[in-house]
Amino acid sequence: MRVRLDISYDGTDFRGFAENAGVVTVGGELRAAIERVLGGPVALTCAGRTDAGVHARGQVVTFDVPDRAVGAEARVDVHRLRRSLNSMLGPSIVVRSVAEVADDFDARFSATWRSYRYTVLRAEVPDPFLGRTTWWVPDPLDLDVMQSGAAALVGEHDFASFCRRPTPDASLVRRVFHAQWVPGADEQLHFEVVASSFCHQMVRSFVGTLVDAGRGRERCADMAAVLAARDRAAAGNIAPPHGLCLWEVGYGDADPVAPSVRGSRSG
Amino acid sequence: MRVRLDISYDGTDFRGFAENAGVVTVGGELRAAIERVLGGPVALTCAGRTDAGVHARGQVVTFDVPDRAVGAEARVDVHRLRRSLNSMLGPSIVVRSVAEVADDFDARFSATWRSYRYTVLRAEVPDPFLGRTTWWVPDPLDLDVMQSGAAALVGEHDFASFCRRPTPDASLVRRVFHAQWVPGADEQLHFEVVASSFCHQMVRSFVGTLVDAGRGRERCADMAAVLAARDRAAAGNIAPPHGLCLWEVGYGDADPVAPSVRGSRSG
Repeated sequence: MRVRLDISYDGTDFRGFAENAGVVTVGGELRAAIERVLGGPVALTCAGRTDAGVHARGQVVTFDVPDRAVGAEARVDVHRLRRSLNSMLGPSIVVRSVAEVADDFDARFSATWRSYRYTVLRAEVPDPFLGRTTWWVPDPLDLDVMQSGAAALVGEHDFASFCRRPTPDASLVRRVFHAQWVPGADEQLHFEVVASSFCHQMVRSFVGTLVDAGRGRERCADMAAVLAARDRAAAGNIAPPHGLCLWEVGYGDADPVAPSVRGSRSG
Repeated sequence: MRVRLDISYDGTDFRGFAENAGVVTVGGELRAAIERVLGGPVALTCAGRTDAGVHARGQVVTFDVPDRAVGAEARVDVHRLRRSLNSMLGPSIVVRSVAEVADDFDARFSATWRSYRYTVLRAEVPDPFLGRTTWWVPDPLDLDVMQSGAAALVGEHDFASFCRRPTPDASLVRRVFHAQWVPGADEQLHFEVVASSFCHQMVRSFVGTLVDAGRGRERCADMAAVLAARDRAAAGNIAPPHGLCLWEVGYGDADPVAPSVRGSRSG
């Protein structure tokens, strides 16, 4: 049987999702906990391989339960599995739901869209409660420039200006359904973006470039030109990881939905 | 000259505000930073001595600048002092403002009221982003019982059922101006309380007793009777510290104001 987990995590203390020898990762902690419960090896697939320090509210993970664990008479009890995993994983990773899914459902390849939210704290002084999840930017920002820059990203484009090409012939063409700055509570400013999928560091590169534009850096103000350059050198800085959160993953025919439409605990 | 600091802190990693040999406290870290900047010893007075693990958004601290530091020609530059302290204190303690005040202004004795907010997370599963600042209570809660219990606390009472008497003849009479449960975002439930001052662990004892009442514990449901008993044994459990936050301190003729009226970054 195949199982889907919907999980949230505070990425502060992890070197990203993907397992990597010698470092603590979300995927490594999660796999170890699942294997302890099920008593056999599993292989995890996730919808979005978040980088070190990046958070998730609605990460989706799938894996196959080893035959031995399923046994002859009993299927895995999904409620008990959630409780067991949450008691082992501690406060930074939470399994929000566990469900049995069809054998051809794949957390990564069945996904039709992903939404991310990046949060900037526009305050004169930092906030001790928001330091782990927001990028503190005390400089004045021109929100109009940032908003029109975001709008230029919507549509199907080659995002070579914002992403390193992983292999020489890899495509960096993606469809962005939605990209917008939304004011939040407590002097927070959220960049919400929904796309078919994302290249590596794409959201952080969008945010870094847009914030550079908002700070008055001329070269970044014309996002259409940055996009058209298809050159990493045309974009601005890469924003730090801790402001970023994988918000939701959509499957099948579900229409793309922006984070602010969902409310802050959905995904 | 006398200086007033308005500070916020995430209390998770501190053994409370008050200095104590051998442990890391908010007051100890703050005093060390001030002394490094000013080059002489200072003594801090705070409005509310928060316990280990308790947070503050609007803690107020006063101290006198040593004469040597003031010098002949220059007063302490309050803007530069804020910047210097914030660069030294790191992410958990933030100095929000620095101001010169009259020599008879005292963070503790000039205060006429304090407001606190205690946050309960009423969700089926915990939340990795709220674990440091909310008490996770997955049980069903009867909010009507909790609300009427809160209302019974308002007024001038002897709070001996909720506080240990520090010395045999210490008075535990306090005036509570406001006590109410307010629903918040993301399945959070806030207990807001404003009083002239608070005895030790008074808010956590209110919350523990009210949540016990909300869970259906008969003995705690009649708060007027618990109050009238003037006996620690009449109250319920003490709620854990990490859900509690010192929100604001009022001075002079300022009317008492509940946290939700202020918005989440005020104080």
